[in-house]
Amino acid sequence: MPNVEKSYEELLSLLREAALLNSCASVLGWDEQTNLPPAGSQHRAEQLGLLAGLTHERATSPRIGELLSELEQCGSLGDVDSPMAVNVREARHAYDRSTKLPRALVEELSQTTALAQHAWVSARKKSDFAEFLPWFEKVVSLKRQQADAIGYNGGVPYDALLDEFEPGASSIEIAAAFRPLRDELVKLVTAIKGSSRQPDANLLRRRFPIEAQKKFAEEAARKIGFDFDAGRLDIAAHPFCSGLGPGDCRLTTRYNEQHFPGAFLGTMHEAGHGMYEQGVSKAAFGSPMGETVSLGIHESQSRLWENFVGRSRPFWQHFFGLAQRAFADSLSDVTFDAWYAAINDVRPSFIRVEADEVTYNLHIMLRFELEQPLISGDLKPADVPQAWNESFTRYFGITPPDAARGCLQDIHWSAGLIGYFPTYSLGNMYAAQFFVAAQRDLGDLSVPFTNGNFQPLLDWLRTNIHRRGKQLRANRLVQAITGQPLSHQPLVDHLHRKFDELYGLT
Amino acid sequence: MPNVEKSYEELLSLLREAALLNSCASVLGWDEQTNLPPAGSQHRAEQLGLLAGLTHERATSPRIGELLSELEQCGSLGDVDSPMAVNVREARHAYDRSTKLPRALVEELSQTTALAQHAWVSARKKSDFAEFLPWFEKVVSLKRQQADAIGYNGGVPYDALLDEFEPGASSIEIAAAFRPLRDELVKLVTAIKGSSRQPDANLLRRRFPIEAQKKFAEEAARKIGFDFDAGRLDIAAHPFCSGLGPGDCRLTTRYNEQHFPGAFLGTMHEAGHGMYEQGVSKAAFGSPMGETVSLGIHESQSRLWENFVGRSRPFWQHFFGLAQRAFADSLSDVTFDAWYAAINDVRPSFIRVEADEVTYNLHIMLRFELEQPLISGDLKPADVPQAWNESFTRYFGITPPDAARGCLQDIHWSAGLIGYFPTYSLGNMYAAQFFVAAQRDLGDLSVPFTNGNFQPLLDWLRTNIHRRGKQLRANRLVQAITGQPLSHQPLVDHLHRKFDELYGLT
Repeated sequence: MPNVEKSYEELLSLLREAALLNSCASVLGWDEQTNLPPAGSQHRAEQLGLLAGLTHERATSPRIGELLSELEQCGSLGDVDSPMAVNVREARHAYDRSTKLPRALVEELSQTTALAQHAWVSARKKSDFAEFLPWFEKVVSLKRQQADAIGYNGGVPYDALLDEFEPGASSIEIAAAFRPLRDELVKLVTAIKGSSRQPDANLLRRRFPIEAQKKFAEEAARKIGFDFDAGRLDIAAHPFCSGLGPGDCRLTTRYNEQHFPGAFLGTMHEAGHGMYEQGVSKAAFGSPMGETVSLGIHESQSRLWENFVGRSRPFWQHFFGLAQRAFADSLSDVTFDAWYAAINDVRPSFIRVEADEVTYNLHIMLRFELEQPLISGDLKPADVPQAWNESFTRYFGITPPDAARGCLQDIHWSAGLIGYFPTYSLGNMYAAQFFVAAQRDLGDLSVPFTNGNFQPLLDWLRTNIHRRGKQLRANRLVQAITGQPLSHQPLVDHLHRKFDELYGLT
Repeated sequence: MPNVEKSYEELLSLLREAALLNSCASVLGWDEQTNLPPAGSQHRAEQLGLLAGLTHERATSPRIGELLSELEQCGSLGDVDSPMAVNVREARHAYDRSTKLPRALVEELSQTTALAQHAWVSARKKSDFAEFLPWFEKVVSLKRQQADAIGYNGGVPYDALLDEFEPGASSIEIAAAFRPLRDELVKLVTAIKGSSRQPDANLLRRRFPIEAQKKFAEEAARKIGFDFDAGRLDIAAHPFCSGLGPGDCRLTTRYNEQHFPGAFLGTMHEAGHGMYEQGVSKAAFGSPMGETVSLGIHESQSRLWENFVGRSRPFWQHFFGLAQRAFADSLSDVTFDAWYAAINDVRPSFIRVEADEVTYNLHIMLRFELEQPLISGDLKPADVPQAWNESFTRYFGITPPDAARGCLQDIHWSAGLIGYFPTYSLGNMYAAQFFVAAQRDLGDLSVPFTNGNFQPLLDWLRTNIHRRGKQLRANRLVQAITGQPLSHQPLVDHLHRKFDELYGLT
């Protein structure tokens, strides 16, 4: 037994050192997006390459493999959900994923996706799918090789890719939740489009001075519970949240003087990610018990704060008066109802990142439905534009006029991120399930929200999700908290409750 | 010969990797001073500790020692000033310095100085030298051990410490230049104090809005030649310049709405450091040929741009009109002559970092004259306050009222930086020598300066100093450029030329 303890300590210390080194790379990555002068790009790439290599070396050190085998064989790790058992289980998962890939494939993927992203930028600018196609084909082919190298346990190759972002998830299970969600959403979007009651979304395009937006967004992020003693909010071209280690979580957003919700709801979203990062155990840093569960669960936190809080009536009952003072020139003649309706404007559009709460998930499902046959080989990359446009027309009732507003819009595929998209909609479904469970435990949250009090919800998330680290995989976590498996129903219920009223549907 | 080439390539690649890793630590260090949220300090210390350990491991790897010995023995490195000979010579110097210290001493120094700095912060706040004394004694004792471990080649132990900051310099040579400089400065300060003509320095304490200061300082830094495509200017509590690698050099300053020259001349100073960093060979990054010569030469660049340019009459002939527009409320009633005199106000004061161009060097010499006997053992740390105050009174004609405004004012000694101070005055003397040589080569620079053209001077510095990397040690560099060894005379001449006129001395 003292041997087990010693091996376990050694394992934790090796994992911790790899995580510490990786967190240095996160600082350089954040700085690259926020501060790096243009002439520094080449050197930054070399710095990040070196750190990635050193981290990989540590994360795949044979000593970790030895220690894991030793611990797995000792049979005394305690209950399967004990910290020790969890750390060994998840460290094994990560170790196997990192060591199963042949080095040559890792390097080819890294070089190809670096170049493919450049090709994508250029192709999107010209809306020229043909220019991107050879790169796309190369990436898909490499990702298929990656799936084979990792293996997929009796499932389908796509699951091996999915597993990187949503450990343990299967495409069958996701498809089973997505299918009814898609059908419900298509109906809801059609009904909303047909409604005679439409919000005046132009209210959001009045003038909102950037300094005032900054102050207002920061104040709202602080009020919902993001800790600025342990974090920052900066400007970057692409909004993101990056946890740089215990006590240091950085959010970014981008401001547009002519568009209020972009930066504001973006900040709510990133603050949701950030509060999750701030809520994991600092003491467990570097071990799975100090890490977040999956991208889907991460996204559940950002969507919950963005949509279930930041787009809710009680939230704006607290914040609208403050917004009117902060943006007096633009909002003094606007009523609460008009504002709340505008914030919740639903409108089919081509670009995913600009989509509203309802249509957003249709963008995701469309991608999920193309990614699976791409990886199985049933869909050729060359046929993606046509397949994309057909699905898009079916779901949204409008057809993308060009590839830039169609299948070329996202960076993900060029970066090799196949299997990533579904986590966005998983996040939306989990968020709805968690929000129901939170109100089951805490009672109606609209009263504290109206009073600007978001602490009960944050405390609930801390206890039920954040502090648990990777103890439970996503499917077990949602079952443990809500008593139900992954389900589309709470999300559909939430959307109907909100939008039936807003658009006068019955 | 192919073996020599192979060994040399391997050496360069090992040096480069250590430098690349060290440059990652520089990013984290910069971020710590500019952006780090308070709760992130502990984690940042751990990140920096890990990177320092990894860098040290690489910089002291026995393989570097083997390669150096091999190359030194081959006898075919070419001319002593060839890149290969220079890289081997300076890599040997750095390698020996890093490997000569016993690990236990390195760790004790690192821990002691970390704690001593905390003790210093607290002691300075209370102006309580007795509280700092035990730490000071410990640091001095460890630095004496360090000097013995490194060795000093027939010189004195202090030289071993000096060598860290000014490779190859000796205290005898420095003292020989400092002595006549000190005598001249004491006379000049006395004459200035006695002059009936005194500038109105309160002009500098009018209201200078911070946004306007930022814009003005950045514009001036750009005009003198700092490349903002390869650098930034940010805010930090302590102004500094940090080269993070090729194409990325970061300056910081601090703004005070009630004091113009702090941020402005501080920016000129840091931009001088920054242009040196930006001027070294990018291709030679990681090898001595791509590094700066010494702290003294580095400081010559910052002082040159701060004092010989930024405090000069022709500089303000270009910039004063712009300043009047930028700070119209405060400067519209101010004449050029009053402004130029105020910027060059000379006034004995207790704090080194606030000192003017003339008295500054007296602050340095006083420290140099105490550091040498501290390290030789002729002066006990306990006797420093008395020795400080006696010298101060003799040089400045005023006596520090307390230790906070006396020997407790600087962080250096608590941080173990003994042998560092002299490089500030070396920088001032070198700057004066270089400025004479530049005008010998380029003609009177006041004409281009008056026209806002600083390119000829920058080009001259690039060619004569920046691009040479560590090819020549400081004493050979100044000899090669000016035809003279280190000398106090050009600095004294410069100060008399400027201040005799300003204060009406004859």
